[in-house]
Amino acid sequence: MDSGNLAWYLTAAVLVLFMTPGIAFFYGGMVRAKSVISMMMMSIGSMGIVGVLWVLIGFNMGDMTAGSGNLIPGVLGNPFSDFALTNLTQGKDANANLLMVLYGATFAIATVALISGAIADRAKYGAWMLFAALWAILDYFPVQGWVWGFNPANGDPTGWVYNLGNLLGFHTATTTIDYAGGTAVHINSAAAALALAFVLGKRIGFTKGVSSPHNVPLTLIGVGILWFGWFGFNVGAAATTNFDGLGILAINTFVAAAAGILGWVVVEKFKDGKPTSIGAGSGAIAGLVAITPACFSLTPGWAIVLGLIAGAVCALAIELKYKLGFDDSLDVVGLHGVGGFLGCLFLGFFANGTGLLYSGSWEQLIVQATAAIAVAAYSFGIAWAIGWAIEKTIGFRVRNEDELAGVDLAVHGEEAYELV
Amino acid sequence: MDSGNLAWYLTAAVLVLFMTPGIAFFYGGMVRAKSVISMMMMSIGSMGIVGVLWVLIGFNMGDMTAGSGNLIPGVLGNPFSDFALTNLTQGKDANANLLMVLYGATFAIATVALISGAIADRAKYGAWMLFAALWAILDYFPVQGWVWGFNPANGDPTGWVYNLGNLLGFHTATTTIDYAGGTAVHINSAAAALALAFVLGKRIGFTKGVSSPHNVPLTLIGVGILWFGWFGFNVGAAATTNFDGLGILAINTFVAAAAGILGWVVVEKFKDGKPTSIGAGSGAIAGLVAITPACFSLTPGWAIVLGLIAGAVCALAIELKYKLGFDDSLDVVGLHGVGGFLGCLFLGFFANGTGLLYSGSWEQLIVQATAAIAVAAYSFGIAWAIGWAIEKTIGFRVRNEDELAGVDLAVHGEEAYELV
Amino acid sequence: MDSGNLAWYLTAAVLVLFMTPGIAFFYGGMVRAKSVISMMMMSIGSMGIVGVLWVLIGFNMGDMTAGSGNLIPGVLGNPFSDFALTNLTQGKDANANLLMVLYGATFAIATVALISGAIADRAKYGAWMLFAALWAILDYFPVQGWVWGFNPANGDPTGWVYNLGNLLGFHTATTTIDYAGGTAVHINSAAAALALAFVLGKRIGFTKGVSSPHNVPLTLIGVGILWFGWFGFNVGAAATTNFDGLGILAINTFVAAAAGILGWVVVEKFKDGKPTSIGAGSGAIAGLVAITPACFSLTPGWAIVLGLIAGAVCALAIELKYKLGFDDSLDVVGLHGVGGFLGCLFLGFFANGTGLLYSGSWEQLIVQATAAIAVAAYSFGIAWAIGWAIEKTIGFRVRNEDELAGVDLAVHGEEAYELV
Repeated sequence: MDSGNLAWYLTAAVLVLFMTPGIAFFYGGMVRAKSVISMMMMSIGSMGIVGVLWVLIGFNMGDMTAGSGNLIPGVLGNPFSDFALTNLTQGKDANANLLMVLYGATFAIATVALISGAIADRAKYGAWMLFAALWAILDYFPVQGWVWGFNPANGDPTGWVYNLGNLLGFHTATTTIDYAGGTAVHINSAAAALALAFVLGKRIGFTKGVSSPHNVPLTLIGVGILWFGWFGFNVGAAATTNFDGLGILAINTFVAAAAGILGWVVVEKFKDGKPTSIGAGSGAIAGLVAITPACFSLTPGWAIVLGLIAGAVCALAIELKYKLGFDDSLDVVGLHGVGGFLGCLFLGFFANGTGLLYSGSWEQLIVQATAAIAVAAYSFGIAWAIGWAIEKTIGFRVRNEDELAGVDLAVHGEEAYELV
Repeated sequence: MDSGNLAWYLTAAVLVLFMTPGIAFFYGGMVRAKSVISMMMMSIGSMGIVGVLWVLIGFNMGDMTAGSGNLIPGVLGNPFSDFALTNLTQGKDANANLLMVLYGATFAIATVALISGAIADRAKYGAWMLFAALWAILDYFPVQGWVWGFNPANGDPTGWVYNLGNLLGFHTATTTIDYAGGTAVHINSAAAALALAFVLGKRIGFTKGVSSPHNVPLTLIGVGILWFGWFGFNVGAAATTNFDGLGILAINTFVAAAAGILGWVVVEKFKDGKPTSIGAGSGAIAGLVAITPACFSLTPGWAIVLGLIAGAVCALAIELKYKLGFDDSLDVVGLHGVGGFLGCLFLGFFANGTGLLYSGSWEQLIVQATAAIAVAAYSFGIAWAIGWAIEKTIGFRVRNEDELAGVDLAVHGEEAYELV
Repeated sequence: MDSGNLAWYLTAAVLVLFMTPGIAFFYGGMVRAKSVISMMMMSIGSMGIVGVLWVLIGFNMGDMTAGSGNLIPGVLGNPFSDFALTNLTQGKDANANLLMVLYGATFAIATVALISGAIADRAKYGAWMLFAALWAILDYFPVQGWVWGFNPANGDPTGWVYNLGNLLGFHTATTTIDYAGGTAVHINSAAAALALAFVLGKRIGFTKGVSSPHNVPLTLIGVGILWFGWFGFNVGAAATTNFDGLGILAINTFVAAAAGILGWVVVEKFKDGKPTSIGAGSGAIAGLVAITPACFSLTPGWAIVLGLIAGAVCALAIELKYKLGFDDSLDVVGLHGVGGFLGCLFLGFFANGTGLLYSGSWEQLIVQATAAIAVAAYSFGIAWAIGWAIEKTIGFRVRNEDELAGVDLAVHGEEAYELV
């Protein structure tokens, strides 16, 4: 990496780090005033526990190159192969390597923080912190290696999800396309969120419209930070490939979000008569989620189409939880799950070169669907198991009286506002 | 562009993108609690509609090089010369070209968002969105080409405003100096804001002091983001000239804002006895607006003088609307119009080399004044025509009862806060 | 500096600039709603007055190379050696030099802003602005040269604090280690804060727990911005050494903050039963403060240990003010003083190469302790003298009735919120 690549890689990592406070504010503004601290603390806690674990063992767990002494080639790296990065700090590539660790850390903490949106208003903090640690170790640390793992020596895929095309014997689509985390981040966190929504159960009195955002500007501050940081998220990895695709990654990230706003507010206008600011902000996020796997492989025109679709479909998808009866409180599934699937599958049709439109082959679509489903299923299972074990031992959900009085005071001893 | 230039260009674009949420918070905090969502939604809507339009056709409209098959050389590019950037994504300069599109997009959305400050508390959202689309197409997309257009092949000016010195047959000042948008952004948006203030008319009960900011910290969050992002705004284009002037652009941007704070609060102290935080924040913005056209062409000492003047003069200028009787609610004219003119004209006197002080010639001043007036007049006319047409057809202003009850609930069905 | 170095240097400066608004929000959320504007205005005022002074004379005062015509070699540069940077804007290194000025400016304003946390709710604004100007000139401008001054021609230390190892005749530790400001910024501001806490005296009714934060999300917005900006703070100077240590600086900055969160909330959990969000945010800051001097010279493993210690110790240290009876309102001493000392002394034990653990010599520890104490003593003395003189002349503290009614209305004529 030359100095320009390093400059952008570090900038990108810092932008992504800023996204987790962004998640805290995006989520925090949408809950009641009596549980905003709990909401934000789940993101901050992720920054603490997942950040430290990643540096100690997590990065190592994602290096699953065959023959490098790791545990299961393509599936699991050895957590202790370079404990606390002792070896990585040495050598001439230390800058690039350590920035790669930092960049990965910011993804890990954001992915875990995203999950917390499903369990607003009702989670114990110690239980959350334990869940965050275990899910990071058992799910995120290896899964991101499944999706993005390749052999730095020759570029060969090493993660089994990345390698799905080969495993299935395909020709057109030899690798899964997930540039920045449609599966590893968004579907992964959404599936875990769904599992926790089941484990913890619905909030008392859960019905549509009963809980409105307590501080809309706070949520929009979160949206602003998220869109801003997302350029690090989607475009940062270009630093590792001498800026291959830098421009298309950036313009697609921008315009899919813009289109997502339009898609969402138009649906709202027709459905409810009034476009909302929570909707416009969610539309931007929906567009960003959908473009995340796809930002490298679409023309700007297709990015606009994908953003419009993602905004519109997610605006409809968030109603599903009321019909299906699970309390994914802040729509992690509706935004990150649905948006992530849309982006992954869209590539099956419109990816440059290998999509159905360009290649005439269904292989890319099959690979994309398989990858998305595999990550979703694994994450749901792991999250459910961890959540269930926590609920059965130390308990995950607060007492009913604490939920009704407000989890902020009960769990954190704090009130968010004293404005007079 | 080498990798360091690309790294900064992308960083700068992302910083400017962050400014539009900054505008949303800067404006949002200054209105009443019952119209903050409407205020923020106008900025967010601009990100959506202007962002998509820029990628589809806007960038093309600014390329008005003679002989390139465009519509009117120096005045208007062909919107469909490269629809949705299909050709631009190809070729070895795709990174630089697409970042130029992204960088331009962030300016376009910010310029439109700025206008909304004039019509707080009383605009229909559909009407605003229509205005945003039409004004972007008819005004901003070509006008930014007037001011910044040059032939990439030989550096010759192609936009007629940029070329004013030549058109007037001048020698000392062959080009208009507007490094980062004193005319194209600030005067342009302020003139449109003034037009809309006339079209929509005054708010019910409009008098001085009747409407105080509902959330000062929110406004200051906006100011913080704006100052932060302004380094992308003023210094980003240095990436296209191999960092020519990078240092002076940055230090001038910094110190003019610092001086603007001092200029404004000193005036407040003498005028009203108490320096306010809204004033200090507005002073920083005034300094930043004034230095925007001038950041490349002044020494740091002159940048301080300009910042002090801008802070002091704008602090006085915002009183004018009460005397002249127009309801430019959040002082787009007083800040961006007056500040923009100050910066443009200051260059006529103190620009390195060509200013009156250095060259002994009035030519630069005449060029600057002509450019500023030309852009202001065009923008006022276009904005008034669009606004008038909208008001006469679908209506631009909400019903009186909706304005009194609060435009947030009437137009967006949302309340910004439920704090208890 | 090549273009990649310039790109990061500018980005870093902009990130650090954003930290001072971050301080404004971090502090602002923790006071009562009736004094939040005063709190934020002290940071904004620092951006104005210290920013302008730095560009005019401050940067020059830090250049104390012997034989360069400066006032006292190793101690004080000539304020007027290049008034308003007239010469620095010339020559082929203008970009790098001016970015160095900008980078230094952002440190200066942040350091002064930090002090204001000690005098919440009770300071006159004009008195604060006068203090800010005088303390910057008499303390920060020279002191930062003491700590970081070196001869650009040959790299020899020129500031006397930087050169302490040589002055003491040591061998193992020839220079003080303070990469990004443990002494120059954090201990410096904390000692001044302690002095002002004595000069202004306790708030009326000062006891533990009587004043809780009025807006926790605002404080956490500040924390988010501060962590984000801290990568500019700690990693920016790598741009001047061709990115030597870029990766280790960044990863240590990240992981010490993460560990600081854990250290603090664990102490809170055991001490009070409930982990708070103010605590988690303060823990991140504590970790960041402690790693600031140490980020270049520790392995990531030691950075985690330091972060944990800093979080835990600062969580206990903030109780001291109640026992010792001084009203350092927002814990500048407990966070920046204690954290700064921890980081500086930790290096005496664990610094790569020269720490006791690696060298077997106590010299580095002695150097570190001497540097920290010297800066603290000087800053305390200067701040006390300036503060005392101001209190005895124009007065520093507001009248009791204004303090009780709220300093925002009395001093700034503003109320922060009108939410209904």
